[in-house]
Amino acid sequence: MSSTFGKLFTLSTWGESHGGSVGVVVDGCPAGLPLCEADVQKELDRRKPGQSKITTQRAESDTVSFFSGVYQGKTLGTPIAMNVVNQDQRPGAYDEMRDKFRPSHADYSYQMKYGLRAVEGGGRSSARETIGRVAAGAIARKILTLATPIRIVAYVESIHGIRMPELSSAPNEEAVEANAVRCPDADYAQQMYDLIDAVRKDGDSVGGVIRCHVSGCPAGLGEPIFDRIEADLGKAMLSIPAAKGFTVGSGFEGTLLKGSEHNDLFEIRDGIIRTKSNYAGGTLGGITSGEELTFRIAFKPTATILKEQSTVDLSGNPASVIGKGRHDPCVLPRAVPIVEAMTSLVLVDHWMRQHAQNRCFEFQQ
Amino acid sequence: MSSTFGKLFTLSTWGESHGGSVGVVVDGCPAGLPLCEADVQKELDRRKPGQSKITTQRAESDTVSFFSGVYQGKTLGTPIAMNVVNQDQRPGAYDEMRDKFRPSHADYSYQMKYGLRAVEGGGRSSARETIGRVAAGAIARKILTLATPIRIVAYVESIHGIRMPELSSAPNEEAVEANAVRCPDADYAQQMYDLIDAVRKDGDSVGGVIRCHVSGCPAGLGEPIFDRIEADLGKAMLSIPAAKGFTVGSGFEGTLLKGSEHNDLFEIRDGIIRTKSNYAGGTLGGITSGEELTFRIAFKPTATILKEQSTVDLSGNPASVIGKGRHDPCVLPRAVPIVEAMTSLVLVDHWMRQHAQNRCFEFQQ
Amino acid sequence: MSSTFGKLFTLSTWGESHGGSVGVVVDGCPAGLPLCEADVQKELDRRKPGQSKITTQRAESDTVSFFSGVYQGKTLGTPIAMNVVNQDQRPGAYDEMRDKFRPSHADYSYQMKYGLRAVEGGGRSSARETIGRVAAGAIARKILTLATPIRIVAYVESIHGIRMPELSSAPNEEAVEANAVRCPDADYAQQMYDLIDAVRKDGDSVGGVIRCHVSGCPAGLGEPIFDRIEADLGKAMLSIPAAKGFTVGSGFEGTLLKGSEHNDLFEIRDGIIRTKSNYAGGTLGGITSGEELTFRIAFKPTATILKEQSTVDLSGNPASVIGKGRHDPCVLPRAVPIVEAMTSLVLVDHWMRQHAQNRCFEFQQ
Amino acid sequence: MSSTFGKLFTLSTWGESHGGSVGVVVDGCPAGLPLCEADVQKELDRRKPGQSKITTQRAESDTVSFFSGVYQGKTLGTPIAMNVVNQDQRPGAYDEMRDKFRPSHADYSYQMKYGLRAVEGGGRSSARETIGRVAAGAIARKILTLATPIRIVAYVESIHGIRMPELSSAPNEEAVEANAVRCPDADYAQQMYDLIDAVRKDGDSVGGVIRCHVSGCPAGLGEPIFDRIEADLGKAMLSIPAAKGFTVGSGFEGTLLKGSEHNDLFEIRDGIIRTKSNYAGGTLGGITSGEELTFRIAFKPTATILKEQSTVDLSGNPASVIGKGRHDPCVLPRAVPIVEAMTSLVLVDHWMRQHAQNRCFEFQQ
Repeated sequence: MSSTFGKLFTLSTWGESHGGSVGVVVDGCPAGLPLCEADVQKELDRRKPGQSKITTQRAESDTVSFFSGVYQGKTLGTPIAMNVVNQDQRPGAYDEMRDKFRPSHADYSYQMKYGLRAVEGGGRSSARETIGRVAAGAIARKILTLATPIRIVAYVESIHGIRMPELSSAPNEEAVEANAVRCPDADYAQQMYDLIDAVRKDGDSVGGVIRCHVSGCPAGLGEPIFDRIEADLGKAMLSIPAAKGFTVGSGFEGTLLKGSEHNDLFEIRDGIIRTKSNYAGGTLGGITSGEELTFRIAFKPTATILKEQSTVDLSGNPASVIGKGRHDPCVLPRAVPIVEAMTSLVLVDHWMRQHAQNRCFEFQQ
Repeated sequence: MSSTFGKLFTLSTWGESHGGSVGVVVDGCPAGLPLCEADVQKELDRRKPGQSKITTQRAESDTVSFFSGVYQGKTLGTPIAMNVVNQDQRPGAYDEMRDKFRPSHADYSYQMKYGLRAVEGGGRSSARETIGRVAAGAIARKILTLATPIRIVAYVESIHGIRMPELSSAPNEEAVEANAVRCPDADYAQQMYDLIDAVRKDGDSVGGVIRCHVSGCPAGLGEPIFDRIEADLGKAMLSIPAAKGFTVGSGFEGTLLKGSEHNDLFEIRDGIIRTKSNYAGGTLGGITSGEELTFRIAFKPTATILKEQSTVDLSGNPASVIGKGRHDPCVLPRAVPIVEAMTSLVLVDHWMRQHAQNRCFEFQQ
Repeated sequence: MSSTFGKLFTLSTWGESHGGSVGVVVDGCPAGLPLCEADVQKELDRRKPGQSKITTQRAESDTVSFFSGVYQGKTLGTPIAMNVVNQDQRPGAYDEMRDKFRPSHADYSYQMKYGLRAVEGGGRSSARETIGRVAAGAIARKILTLATPIRIVAYVESIHGIRMPELSSAPNEEAVEANAVRCPDADYAQQMYDLIDAVRKDGDSVGGVIRCHVSGCPAGLGEPIFDRIEADLGKAMLSIPAAKGFTVGSGFEGTLLKGSEHNDLFEIRDGIIRTKSNYAGGTLGGITSGEELTFRIAFKPTATILKEQSTVDLSGNPASVIGKGRHDPCVLPRAVPIVEAMTSLVLVDHWMRQHAQNRCFEFQQ
Repeated sequence: MSSTFGKLFTLSTWGESHGGSVGVVVDGCPAGLPLCEADVQKELDRRKPGQSKITTQRAESDTVSFFSGVYQGKTLGTPIAMNVVNQDQRPGAYDEMRDKFRPSHADYSYQMKYGLRAVEGGGRSSARETIGRVAAGAIARKILTLATPIRIVAYVESIHGIRMPELSSAPNEEAVEANAVRCPDADYAQQMYDLIDAVRKDGDSVGGVIRCHVSGCPAGLGEPIFDRIEADLGKAMLSIPAAKGFTVGSGFEGTLLKGSEHNDLFEIRDGIIRTKSNYAGGTLGGITSGEELTFRIAFKPTATILKEQSTVDLSGNPASVIGKGRHDPCVLPRAVPIVEAMTSLVLVDHWMRQHAQNRCFEFQQ
């Protein structure tokens, strides 16, 4: 239940880590959008394993196939099914986990919820599921790029204790992609890289913070009361594996300011209504204000570590486990495209909702 | 669009701050639940204005009336409509705001979204809308209390720079209700009270952090992939006015730990499977683990302050505004029951979803 | 569960026949629509009891009050709650039904589903619930009238064995409203009236068929695969109390034709693409074709009759019941505005959906 | 938009007739259900082309592959993706249709809705889409069979003017499958077969009526107000290609009876509460009564005929078309498993909903 996301532009994902495939079907995509597999592959390549020494070495090309919904290079307006075959399957490698619950993984909670689970690679709880989201997000992003002024950039802001200086607006996309960490500040990126690599050699893991900026977003997106833009973005981000926190604008640090310091005063700038500061992070009352939307997501350190840990087994006996071979010592570099994908999906959906309610009848225009 | 929340146990709220009434209709409530207006009024009284010197003095009794769905003291299984008439309306008091956008309020974004807005008291963007949520949450809480082991306690953990020591498990509900701030630590509560009162006298405002604990929650609630328990709780919390951040378990601070420190090791305790630590905050892979669910919400300082602020008017000319009379210098004490209400609603809904999928056919029992 | 209808323009109804009130909250209504209570009252008056000798004499003014969502004569884009207080309550009148199941009423099935029921007037299963739909439908109809070319007319086509000649296109609205039966053919209307009156005097009841025409509907509305326009209209109609069948276009009679007879050939007429015949009833593949949408709904004879009938009681003992006093010997005249309301709701929703998907991005325009 | 069906047990289908594949992802399936591809293939084989001389000769094995959601022979509770590759593609065969609108097909309405369309075989509007439904329905049916007393049988009741005598209860499944028409009365089946074959030779087509019986259904399923069991079944049936009408119980013929004739009187039979007649068709107030659910669906004659027909082309010029080669002269025999699949899906969903609301809390049991 609930592998579907979105109200008007919806995606439904499927797939276990070591099952036949992972994939997604996108429904509600507008007709007439130019689209080919390369548009999607480009984003999948940013997410795929083995991009550098500091990501998992699982050998997956993550090649996408379209099954439907695209005809002669354009979307039909019908569901677009996209599939990625799982290639590097090592069934035997997970035998030990059949009976033991890996700490801070979902083995135990899946077992309790469903009464059984796909053991290999965590099954459905594997981050491989996010392939479907990135594929769907690539379509959403193409819509935004072609047909709206909205642009999205996410990047790694901190890894463990290393935190780059706060940016006042979105960095250049190229600067983010220029290094394996996806931190736009080259110096900090190097420090982060070195830390991740050291942690990797030690068989341990680290977490950090990803920040995302949405520029060019017009005022008026977001649906009070419950589907506020920050509520829907928050849900989207908190649905990403390993996410433990979400803040918009000033977040928890804003609680240290007084109202007189935190309020964003309106002014006329460049001929339009703007705010002098942006503690709000681009949203007022759940609706975009026209200022840059900006939010952060905390990702915990990867649960898989190559160290022995105590646990219990299915029968409730003490046991120990130790992670094997291929893992990400830090999920953040590969999570950046996932954050961008989910952001794209939320914004396309809200764009459609706002237009449906407030732009589609004659008396509104 | 989107004043409805929940998949199986749903609520739809209505109402502007100074319109005829605010209210809610709850659909999907199980039949046969003993319920009377006093069950709901009790929670509304915890939210209502004028409870102490540090909350707004708007004179509202917030008396609830049931219109449907309850018969001879029991729920019928049909929609329960609950209404609260707006009493203390001062239409003239808001004339100045008709043309000016109050900083960090939703005046501007509503105007841009809808092309018009109810000026008085912020209209739909007023926190009065949460009356409907608290009323619906009171029903959800009664279900949890009568028919499940789940118990929910929220409290103010910090106000501005004053932060009480971290609790390792849920505090006593009476300790929370013992003071006007709703902080279970009496000493810190007093410091917080004094700060809020000082800020109030200065015409300024402060924010802070509310923490919530859910105990007694069985393993297995939460629906991957998108409706993870933390994603749905996060959305619920981020839909509350003034909320700017949400974390579960270790949150942003967890990013400063390594995997070997952050992983929660399984053990057998009191004869059942438990974890030694609870950095996860009670959720693994989006599904409850049986440990206490615990999360925090950041609330910004109230936007309304009794100081002059610069802004612009509808025509785009520079202007200034100054807050009038009745406002909350700090929303957190009254937000505690809202947090509990939203938490109750999410948990009842997920309980129903888990049972529908995984408990209702013969081969599953 | 499921007192909500619509995806973008949604209504949630509440209310038992003899509870405090019946009402509805409409969410997703576009902002800026001129709207006042009289717009809604006009439609409620067409549905209300006591309009003539052949409808129930229950004394209800069915006066609507707006609680929210309208400001200075225009919709705000926020939920519009509308309430109608139940006035003519006769609690004692239903004591006998407390223990007995009335034949062909919902007493038994509600009891089995919920374990209890509001006895008086059938509680939630009463057709009084449709007040909320008619109120919401009045708003939808106003949107269609003001901002689209779509026009809707329903009427009684047959009562029991009396069937007016088939119309080739929508009749004049005034002709429908000219008589108490709401049949646009005055002669047949009189025959129907006389039959209903005779049946009424005999304490019996009759059913019949309502037909509805939607003209001015552009091609392109309807969402394959599942939300085809005829599927959504069918669901809407079959959700009306006493409805037992729905057909679009040629319906069951079309099964007696061959493909070569039934196919609607395209031609150019008045400069645009039209079909020579309209056996399809205005829908091809679930999407409107631009031809008149036309469909029929069968309503069974009213279950309440003033004759003694055998039944069983709550304890499973044989019993007998006899209808009391106020009832509709035929629901069709009052069902006409309900059919129109549900049709309006479906069309506004689909208009919004079509525009959201296929008209709101730049490359589509 | 809207290729998803169901609230708790949901399916999302994809696929164009001559695209890469048609398929479906099922979400919300209970965990632990024994399931293999053969369970699904069995139903697909009943739907596939080429079963007899009177169905289309398109050469498709319609072999299903599972991509996810099943592990070691049991469902995981996660999404089950099922795929069927399109094999017999003849792209050139449809060149003529690129510019012309086939009468009573969806060519024109798709073109108007989306601005483009997949020409070959009707693209998304092809009945090949129903493969996904039959696959999903096979899972739903297995749940019903294994874990509930509910049994479903559909069959062809009439073809064109040939109508078998009305049955008072569900026929034997074997009798239905004993002939190519799927009519349980062998004599009528032969007459129908001969008629279809004659029509086929003439290049023409016929329609008819399918009737469905649901036995063993407990009282209490169905969700008033809008998701009545007959409303949800009606929508499901009206979403099947070529369906033009739906009736439950007495349907349109019931309008010829008086209330005193039509009411189903309660009695005690075999120790339980039953009704003497079943004009209601097993539903009272939208909720199952425990009597057999029974309903009918009208299917129009197939639009494709091998006769020349006049039409217009994309530029609005007069043109003519003639159907080519492979088509079903009558869709009903192959529609029987589709009707059963959709019925299974509706009933599993409603079973889950009823249990979620009214069986899952302690005070209800």
